[in-house]
Amino acid sequence: MNLQRNRKQRQGDELGFGNKVIDRNTRFIKPDGSFNIRRKEISVWDSTSIYHHLISMSWRRFNTIVLAYFALMNSIFASLYYLVGMEHMNGSRSLTEIGKFMDGFFFSAQTLTTVGYGGLSPGNHIMNAIASLEALFGVLGFALITGLLYGRFSRPIAKILFSKNAIVAPFKDGTAFQFRLANQIRNGQLIDVECRLSVAMLEEENGSKIRRFHPLELEVKKINFFPMTWTINHIITESSPIYGFNEKDLEEADVEFMILFTGFDDTFSQTVNARYSYKSFDTVYGAKFTSVFSFDESGKTIQDLNLLNVYEKTELPVVPETV
Amino acid sequence: MNLQRNRKQRQGDELGFGNKVIDRNTRFIKPDGSFNIRRKEISVWDSTSIYHHLISMSWRRFNTIVLAYFALMNSIFASLYYLVGMEHMNGSRSLTEIGKFMDGFFFSAQTLTTVGYGGLSPGNHIMNAIASLEALFGVLGFALITGLLYGRFSRPIAKILFSKNAIVAPFKDGTAFQFRLANQIRNGQLIDVECRLSVAMLEEENGSKIRRFHPLELEVKKINFFPMTWTINHIITESSPIYGFNEKDLEEADVEFMILFTGFDDTFSQTVNARYSYKSFDTVYGAKFTSVFSFDESGKTIQDLNLLNVYEKTELPVVPETV
Amino acid sequence: MNLQRNRKQRQGDELGFGNKVIDRNTRFIKPDGSFNIRRKEISVWDSTSIYHHLISMSWRRFNTIVLAYFALMNSIFASLYYLVGMEHMNGSRSLTEIGKFMDGFFFSAQTLTTVGYGGLSPGNHIMNAIASLEALFGVLGFALITGLLYGRFSRPIAKILFSKNAIVAPFKDGTAFQFRLANQIRNGQLIDVECRLSVAMLEEENGSKIRRFHPLELEVKKINFFPMTWTINHIITESSPIYGFNEKDLEEADVEFMILFTGFDDTFSQTVNARYSYKSFDTVYGAKFTSVFSFDESGKTIQDLNLLNVYEKTELPVVPETV
Amino acid sequence: MNLQRNRKQRQGDELGFGNKVIDRNTRFIKPDGSFNIRRKEISVWDSTSIYHHLISMSWRRFNTIVLAYFALMNSIFASLYYLVGMEHMNGSRSLTEIGKFMDGFFFSAQTLTTVGYGGLSPGNHIMNAIASLEALFGVLGFALITGLLYGRFSRPIAKILFSKNAIVAPFKDGTAFQFRLANQIRNGQLIDVECRLSVAMLEEENGSKIRRFHPLELEVKKINFFPMTWTINHIITESSPIYGFNEKDLEEADVEFMILFTGFDDTFSQTVNARYSYKSFDTVYGAKFTSVFSFDESGKTIQDLNLLNVYEKTELPVVPETV
Repeated sequence: MNLQRNRKQRQGDELGFGNKVIDRNTRFIKPDGSFNIRRKEISVWDSTSIYHHLISMSWRRFNTIVLAYFALMNSIFASLYYLVGMEHMNGSRSLTEIGKFMDGFFFSAQTLTTVGYGGLSPGNHIMNAIASLEALFGVLGFALITGLLYGRFSRPIAKILFSKNAIVAPFKDGTAFQFRLANQIRNGQLIDVECRLSVAMLEEENGSKIRRFHPLELEVKKINFFPMTWTINHIITESSPIYGFNEKDLEEADVEFMILFTGFDDTFSQTVNARYSYKSFDTVYGAKFTSVFSFDESGKTIQDLNLLNVYEKTELPVVPETV
Repeated sequence: MNLQRNRKQRQGDELGFGNKVIDRNTRFIKPDGSFNIRRKEISVWDSTSIYHHLISMSWRRFNTIVLAYFALMNSIFASLYYLVGMEHMNGSRSLTEIGKFMDGFFFSAQTLTTVGYGGLSPGNHIMNAIASLEALFGVLGFALITGLLYGRFSRPIAKILFSKNAIVAPFKDGTAFQFRLANQIRNGQLIDVECRLSVAMLEEENGSKIRRFHPLELEVKKINFFPMTWTINHIITESSPIYGFNEKDLEEADVEFMILFTGFDDTFSQTVNARYSYKSFDTVYGAKFTSVFSFDESGKTIQDLNLLNVYEKTELPVVPETV
Repeated sequence: MNLQRNRKQRQGDELGFGNKVIDRNTRFIKPDGSFNIRRKEISVWDSTSIYHHLISMSWRRFNTIVLAYFALMNSIFASLYYLVGMEHMNGSRSLTEIGKFMDGFFFSAQTLTTVGYGGLSPGNHIMNAIASLEALFGVLGFALITGLLYGRFSRPIAKILFSKNAIVAPFKDGTAFQFRLANQIRNGQLIDVECRLSVAMLEEENGSKIRRFHPLELEVKKINFFPMTWTINHIITESSPIYGFNEKDLEEADVEFMILFTGFDDTFSQTVNARYSYKSFDTVYGAKFTSVFSFDESGKTIQDLNLLNVYEKTELPVVPETV
Repeated sequence: MNLQRNRKQRQGDELGFGNKVIDRNTRFIKPDGSFNIRRKEISVWDSTSIYHHLISMSWRRFNTIVLAYFALMNSIFASLYYLVGMEHMNGSRSLTEIGKFMDGFFFSAQTLTTVGYGGLSPGNHIMNAIASLEALFGVLGFALITGLLYGRFSRPIAKILFSKNAIVAPFKDGTAFQFRLANQIRNGQLIDVECRLSVAMLEEENGSKIRRFHPLELEVKKINFFPMTWTINHIITESSPIYGFNEKDLEEADVEFMILFTGFDDTFSQTVNARYSYKSFDTVYGAKFTSVFSFDESGKTIQDLNLLNVYEKTELPVVPETV
């Protein structure tokens, strides 16, 4: 079997991965599209990194941070008002120390959110000065929080549904590597859609195994519209790095098929992308995808995304071994 | 007549439609530019889909949702204040139960919008805590609503006016498929404008009819500026999939001419796009477009968009049938 | 002299102008970059057109509209409060009818801006209901206004300074059409900058004059960085549509040199563009641009934008007339 | 040694620098990516320039400006209220003139931020009119400030870490000019990454030295993903402008290697860019970069950005002098 040891290394670089990374049975691209890399960082603490972090964390975590920020700010300013003395706060009638602190806390909340009922209001100039600064702080701080909230909500993301498995299917006289994808967002139209496929695989060089990266040719790599599903088709010709591979060869080469999907989102008016990968154990050797189209009672075509990963096992044509 | 059965299927894929969809006399692209496809969805309930929905729904529906949200939130918080007891709300002087609830409702409205007059204000710590949370909620919730409102208002959309009909016009010694388009937005300049035309048509394959997709060549597909109207011109040469078609052939092939328009909007500084399609019954066989330019009393050129769809019937040259 | 009547019309279409527009001595592109076209509009009244209008009008006009909106809204709501009866407004102590209306007016202003002092506050449920709606209205309305304000302020615009005159300069053995441009924004870096030049000119066809459009080749049309000034250079070779033209020929052909400039703005992270044009009377026949670079006392290079349009008259080499 | 005097000047223009700028030992591109050019400006005072300035200044300076704006606005409005007379301000109980002014100052702060407690509230129509305008002003002004704040925070910037030194390394039978770069933002994925390299160098022309610009070919100039580090490799073949240069030649030619990096940021969904340059004294002649990859105790690959600039000195193969 021809492992194509002479292939140029250039393509590996084109993926932005070095060829030094050789952990077996691990993915480069995790199922959520992020990269599986540990980095020793040079400490970076600037607004861009914080923004990246806040915009991409989970909603649960973001909401917790907002609540914690709100509680913390109110506690800090409540302490300041308490230290000045709540007897200078008009409308504060609590007699216990805790009650006075709570009055300061709620006054702070009313100030930070700029709701300012006035049931509590600053009674002297020091109180007024602190409250003015808190109001300024509140306006600016909530500008960042609400900006982030909306930024998270309106962030252009391609919700691409990839078939759980890739398959090696019969194709004309030979075989093809195939997977399917669909646009998960019902009303979000994608145009100028492009798909790029690469494979990372172990190859022998001077007796030792080294991981190499190769781009894979696609039958169709660009489409104008993407309203339905799309079957990506890499025809396994002699020029393919996985030509002549059987199921066991794929596993031994520890292949990872890596996908970069880009498109222009009509709603956001911005380019979006998605990443995904299939390992050898995600790839069904000898199968055909079942059509996602069916007909309803009135004869109208229906596309059923639940069928995206449905395939049936099939025989593959025998490919002559190239020695 | 040559139906060009040997044409490669590749182009169909390039449109992002499969070739399985064969409902007769239906459009792929609806007149508003959306796709005419029913999908069985995998249930998706994430922020991106909600955003897509909220940003692209009608204004009437959006406004209704905002009002309903406002009423609902106020009702919920009014209930909370009412349950705690309106005797702990300073300034509430209503004596009936409904009146007390209404006091809570309006206090809630003043809190959510952060207007906070103070005529009503929290009278104890529980009231204060609820009000603080509502103020936070109000700031965050209205951040999303106002963000969506402005996002809807400022969303880059190409308002392209397509002529209601396409025509098959005489062109040099043969014929051409033509339609016209204009930029509807008076002050919005589009640059780097591109138009792509494809046709979906029924073709015979092994005795049964199958829908195929073909790209159509345009005389000019890109222009730098788009200040006026633009006549799109597909010259029907022998290499055209509709070469030799008469009016009846177009109808029998159930043709749909599909257009993807893209341009860079000067005001939004973003790429915008528009989609449109003509069926055979939208296409006038044998016609010439009337000029949209006229001259005012001072001799100055005027472009009249009301004339965009005006054409006059004309004879077409006889094209030899290719057997 | 060869007027190149056989040139294909295709290029004209590429500019997005028809060839029907033939007013003499008028510009297609006005000095501010907008197009000099009168259009009879189909009435359009949608949010996109309104947005385009509000975002691109002058600041003076925008500010006037904001003030007028504020006054109008307050007047409307003041009327409502007045009709309900200002005796239901806590804190209103005015006795005259005008005074009562003004109380309603200022209460409205405090509600719309959500400042809500509480010196005035709703005294019954009807007042409360109106005030709640006004507060909602205020939040939403000011979201649009402030969004527009910031959108106007942060709108990506290329501030390109074009030399007031273009010149026909000696270049090697022949001549070249030249003009200069500079980035006016001090800290705004532009990268991937491109310039496209076209000419509109009258040509004889069948005895009558018709306006044609031709693209003009540039020596360099793309640069990576644009930190300084850039001299655009169209070498007038035999393939140029203005080859062999002298000053009078340019005037008779009523030439308009049209420029489309695009670049990627580093600060906005968006593509920006600028348009400009030179008529024959803007073009100095026989001149050389003076360098914009000088040296300060320490020998450091200084670029002086005030010199952008400075040129000196010079002789042009005699070009043999092509008959 | 061949200085390639016949090379065309075109490339210099492609960099957007003229060839007139000849200060020795200065950089065109400063280490922060900005351009090292002094310009005599035509005075520009428009919103675009102000925006550019405010969005790109340091955080310290921006915060100072915000505080100063807040203090200034409050002082101005406090003066107005004071001039009308604080006896018309409900709730103002200060007896000293300074106290009265401070009451006006804090009332102004409560109005500008729209917190409006109501402890202080306008007592007559003139006061009300000023307060209404201030509230409008506050809403609009803070819209700009908070927009800028969030715009600064969310501005798409490529945080690219360049190796401090470039090296001339042995490569196959010859040498190569190399440097390394890494994406500093931990969670920020860059795709479609491109690097362009040029060199500015002194060349002899007619006996005097003139600065010329040449693009340098890269082994790989585009990569799909950029999750790790990337070594940029310019192989010094005979067609390279620095072919045959030794360390002293580089210094005498006063070379500056200029880099333009662009990529598409996944989080911002926008194109970002970075600029950097190496002078001859930043370039280590005869070195090899050390791998940034190591293995932790479990055998997992770790990428250590602290090693980005680590290299070891090495011998270079002797390149035959071309006379």
